[in-house]
Amino acid sequence: MKTFIGDDFLLTNSVAEDLYHNHAASMPIIDYHNHLDPAAIASNHQFKNITQAWLSGDHYKWRAMRANGVDEKFITGNASDEDKFSKWAETVPNTLRNPLYHWTHLELRRYFGINELLSTETAAEIYSETAALMNKDSHLCVGLLLQMNVESLCTTDDPIDKLNHHQAIKERIKVPKVYPTFRPDKALQLDESKEYLDYIQRLSTASGITINSLDSFLEALQQRVDYFHENGCRVSDLGFHQIPAFNPNATGLDQLFSSLLNGKNIDLTEKENLQGYVLTALCKMYHAKGWVQQFHLGALRNNNERALRELGPDTGYDSMGDYSQATRLSKFFNNLDNTDQLAKSIIYNLNPRDNDLFATMAGNFNDGKIVGKMQFGTGWWFLDQKNGMENQMNSLSNMGLLSRFVGMLTDSRSFLSFPRHEYFRRILCNLIGTDVENGEIPHDMDLLGKMVEDICYNNAKNYFDFSE
Amino acid sequence: MKTFIGDDFLLTNSVAEDLYHNHAASMPIIDYHNHLDPAAIASNHQFKNITQAWLSGDHYKWRAMRANGVDEKFITGNASDEDKFSKWAETVPNTLRNPLYHWTHLELRRYFGINELLSTETAAEIYSETAALMNKDSHLCVGLLLQMNVESLCTTDDPIDKLNHHQAIKERIKVPKVYPTFRPDKALQLDESKEYLDYIQRLSTASGITINSLDSFLEALQQRVDYFHENGCRVSDLGFHQIPAFNPNATGLDQLFSSLLNGKNIDLTEKENLQGYVLTALCKMYHAKGWVQQFHLGALRNNNERALRELGPDTGYDSMGDYSQATRLSKFFNNLDNTDQLAKSIIYNLNPRDNDLFATMAGNFNDGKIVGKMQFGTGWWFLDQKNGMENQMNSLSNMGLLSRFVGMLTDSRSFLSFPRHEYFRRILCNLIGTDVENGEIPHDMDLLGKMVEDICYNNAKNYFDFSE
Amino acid sequence: MKTFIGDDFLLTNSVAEDLYHNHAASMPIIDYHNHLDPAAIASNHQFKNITQAWLSGDHYKWRAMRANGVDEKFITGNASDEDKFSKWAETVPNTLRNPLYHWTHLELRRYFGINELLSTETAAEIYSETAALMNKDSHLCVGLLLQMNVESLCTTDDPIDKLNHHQAIKERIKVPKVYPTFRPDKALQLDESKEYLDYIQRLSTASGITINSLDSFLEALQQRVDYFHENGCRVSDLGFHQIPAFNPNATGLDQLFSSLLNGKNIDLTEKENLQGYVLTALCKMYHAKGWVQQFHLGALRNNNERALRELGPDTGYDSMGDYSQATRLSKFFNNLDNTDQLAKSIIYNLNPRDNDLFATMAGNFNDGKIVGKMQFGTGWWFLDQKNGMENQMNSLSNMGLLSRFVGMLTDSRSFLSFPRHEYFRRILCNLIGTDVENGEIPHDMDLLGKMVEDICYNNAKNYFDFSE
Repeated sequence: MKTFIGDDFLLTNSVAEDLYHNHAASMPIIDYHNHLDPAAIASNHQFKNITQAWLSGDHYKWRAMRANGVDEKFITGNASDEDKFSKWAETVPNTLRNPLYHWTHLELRRYFGINELLSTETAAEIYSETAALMNKDSHLCVGLLLQMNVESLCTTDDPIDKLNHHQAIKERIKVPKVYPTFRPDKALQLDESKEYLDYIQRLSTASGITINSLDSFLEALQQRVDYFHENGCRVSDLGFHQIPAFNPNATGLDQLFSSLLNGKNIDLTEKENLQGYVLTALCKMYHAKGWVQQFHLGALRNNNERALRELGPDTGYDSMGDYSQATRLSKFFNNLDNTDQLAKSIIYNLNPRDNDLFATMAGNFNDGKIVGKMQFGTGWWFLDQKNGMENQMNSLSNMGLLSRFVGMLTDSRSFLSFPRHEYFRRILCNLIGTDVENGEIPHDMDLLGKMVEDICYNNAKNYFDFSE
Repeated sequence: MKTFIGDDFLLTNSVAEDLYHNHAASMPIIDYHNHLDPAAIASNHQFKNITQAWLSGDHYKWRAMRANGVDEKFITGNASDEDKFSKWAETVPNTLRNPLYHWTHLELRRYFGINELLSTETAAEIYSETAALMNKDSHLCVGLLLQMNVESLCTTDDPIDKLNHHQAIKERIKVPKVYPTFRPDKALQLDESKEYLDYIQRLSTASGITINSLDSFLEALQQRVDYFHENGCRVSDLGFHQIPAFNPNATGLDQLFSSLLNGKNIDLTEKENLQGYVLTALCKMYHAKGWVQQFHLGALRNNNERALRELGPDTGYDSMGDYSQATRLSKFFNNLDNTDQLAKSIIYNLNPRDNDLFATMAGNFNDGKIVGKMQFGTGWWFLDQKNGMENQMNSLSNMGLLSRFVGMLTDSRSFLSFPRHEYFRRILCNLIGTDVENGEIPHDMDLLGKMVEDICYNNAKNYFDFSE
Repeated sequence: MKTFIGDDFLLTNSVAEDLYHNHAASMPIIDYHNHLDPAAIASNHQFKNITQAWLSGDHYKWRAMRANGVDEKFITGNASDEDKFSKWAETVPNTLRNPLYHWTHLELRRYFGINELLSTETAAEIYSETAALMNKDSHLCVGLLLQMNVESLCTTDDPIDKLNHHQAIKERIKVPKVYPTFRPDKALQLDESKEYLDYIQRLSTASGITINSLDSFLEALQQRVDYFHENGCRVSDLGFHQIPAFNPNATGLDQLFSSLLNGKNIDLTEKENLQGYVLTALCKMYHAKGWVQQFHLGALRNNNERALRELGPDTGYDSMGDYSQATRLSKFFNNLDNTDQLAKSIIYNLNPRDNDLFATMAGNFNDGKIVGKMQFGTGWWFLDQKNGMENQMNSLSNMGLLSRFVGMLTDSRSFLSFPRHEYFRRILCNLIGTDVENGEIPHDMDLLGKMVEDICYNNAKNYFDFSE
């Protein structure tokens, strides 16, 4: 019987152990997509206590607590930080077999050296043990990143962001390198709502370009792309549930955009045509800059209106959708490829039923000019766990080239989530090691060690063209 | 090599064995959803022979026989019971790797003490061995349930049912407790067919309320909900292929319902609006009573019209569909949650591609007030087998809290199907035991033993508020 | 640790080894669906070198090379055959965990006796070793088939094909038997394009029937079905992405077909009605002849227009789609079954999320007259690998009768792909052997040996009624 989270956690054979300990473990981390707060990095923020660092903002834990019958007061409400921690501790033993059980104990071990299991019995002691560390350099925001050997990371930012925190980081902090990501979800909302028109106004201000037409809208976006590029950005992202269905030859879009600026309702077909047009224009800008474009597809967000009213978005009320993805992805990429303006792309899939579809879709647009140009991205959100990662890597292996995979990212809001790279690396090494044990892969440790190092680090290093 | 269906059947490690033998095996059974005939329980029916008890009505076996090239005469036709049994025996060896092979031999062992494998060679002997037991107390309907330690069970009943058999059972039989389930599929058909209008007539009679408007229709349904509640019902069910897409603010529904009563055709959008309205009204009644509501989604029924004409429904011609489920589920639950009228709910999924979707959808509507309020139900129908159960439990584990799972039910028409609880419990214990062996779960037998007992019995006991 | 592609490759236990070596390995091959060129067989073609035999035409390898950043010049371009081979050799180590890695080394071993691993280091040596064999009898087209013990095979042919190569083969070659397959994809295109009207013209010529109406179109097709039957054809195929949605009672189809002949545009609903009508008529012809009908569903083809323009179809730019399949399949088969004109059918699924759906759908139309009448076909295209085959066989096992499965086919354009039967057989034996080891199947080697032999050979032999 293996020890729980022992040295060889998730490694079921000696090849896997060799690969992990001698090839994966020491590689630096390139966390090319997350939701860390750049202001917290710039100011090297100190968390008041583990509740602040660990529970506030983590909607994975919130969902588990709600399923466990914990009152909202102890989740997002006005209970004390210690009481909130205590309710989380009470929930933890009920998360057995959920990734939270692993993450929780990995994080306590790696950041705080605490090997006990969290539960009602150990809650008070662990709360005070962690409290004693919170003001150490190693446990301020930058220290937490350095503990995990993070070499560089990409935050997620709106086009209207001034990037002043990124500029401050660049001045003050040598390691890790922190780059912004251009995520224009709000700009692409393209509806006649007051919120959207306000956003357009703010985009005008940020870009210094008066937006009164579709052309000037694109000019403003181009200005922001240029500005982000100057500030080190080399990656974009999009969080739509599916690619808009659109007619690349649709006409009358200028007029449509003007109507919208005047607060006139447009129907879904018109909206998707407009979204498709603007998104395509943006993707051509990304291509011109040599950026990588990311697409996070498949989420059904804000299912619970009551919670949305009371707590806002991203509070644990999102799930998987069951959208059509294939034809929309195909037409969209084809349209860009047709004029040779398809940037390096990563497509992430939230509903695992579509993993094989995504893996084969990526393969349709490799052009033989860039190694691993089209990537099927790692397991995302609900899929960021052992089964999810194994399924994604098995689909990628069967339908494409695992060896060219750019690997893991945290996608996290938490400074304490970086052991997920370790988790991923152990799973990766175990998949490969198991195949060797079974005679399905040759026992060539040079070849396999290099493959593991590539997936953990080198592939991402080569794929993302980060400026120094 | 393990013995076929030995003591440690499906248990691949010592922790799993410990969990099963010392924690799972002795827990009583709460079979909270099945299709047993209450009349047969009330009269403590004696089956003429094993064909009557085992083959008549079991469309799983019928499908297998048809695939094996057995003539319909020996399946639902006029062949003798012994000949039918013989044809089933001939089919059994060809069901290797199908759950029927396991169920068949588990049932022969557990109810009849027969350890031989059923085949053409053993058919005659097994037929006569079972015949000798059919008139024993232990093999009448109630005895068969007691053999399996069934503490309580829920049948499936139409709103117009008089529940006289349930009343007779309550008077005559102490154990198991037998409760009705309110399943209004026919009432929700809401079309202009003669069958439906006849049904409305019968609902009028049953409720004592003249149905001549949408309001009086709902009154009649409320009367039946009240009546079912008085007779011990605490659970509803629905067998739609998907939740109706409906506009909660649709108007003109009274008129629509009146048109329908007058035999006028209504279109699909109108029908779904009407269905959504009535279903929502029913769900609010369930909530007011504190019931659990169940939804069995995803079936594509009656694919074979020739068979439907000749044999009727539920004769082995149903399959999985590939319906959109996410948005409909989301809107439906959200609408009920918005007014705080969402009852405890179990959603069952027939197409395993949607398992993860269902598991995450349930998580959107936990409110922190009821432990495990929103349940992703156990593998159903085609998924009621080892892979199906493992997949459901893995999805639930990854996306929610397995420890709060209300566990297994037979969903069966057969008094001989209760070893499926044993089957489920072995699979559950093996999943957990394997994780312990692999170091993915701590080796804490108090914690794990309790978790297993909860999933086998305690969770359902607490979740369903059955009257004494 | 097992040796890579050793004697017991993919066999993880002794029962599996016994089943494979003593039951599966020596069975002849019935390759009932592939895309081999009958002209090459008729002329017993000699390949110039391994690039010609192995790389030209194999779009699986092309996709991998493109993902690996290989320039198109070395894939489909004008580089020398040796340079192309060298680029493939460079790619091979990067295909680890992809089926190409297994196929590549299985094929080098089985056809050429080369046990080295292909890579840049070994490329030149392997190129020259294979070159030395290319002119031997054993390595001409017929010899390659005989090396693998191919007893019979079915090519894929258009209704307008003269079948002269098949006639030549019948005259000249005793083993293997080579039969045509009737694949009317082009005839069913049913649009107003110039290409289609040209095709109709060629069908007129081939059949000797002037096509100027829907009736004469069907007469021409009937003539070709008769002609194919006379030439040994016993199987049809269809490569649509999904079954057309059609109204079996649609009227005005004659007029519609005439419009189309006159180059008039018809809309999608009309087109699907017409396609459904003609496909149904064809299926009734197949039924009358006692043929087997195959349906290859789920592909999204020609995603990359640039590549389509430059390289044509079937060059590695196809992927999985996410189409609705259930209702269309159900209605289509039901319509044929209703008049008792449903032929033996095999449904193949390209998107594995629909495996269980396909397996249950097949079960709706078994009629108890033909053993295993409705087949869920083996893993196809992207799914023709270990996980894909295991998933298909597990779905089939859980939802139907694995023992009645007609098993494997190559679906290949390559004369070097027949070790895939060995691959399949090893995987099959391992699934069964593992179940025995785990006590989930009785250790009855007579029963299991027969089951394996049936799936490898006997079932297909009985199912396909090939003329001598």
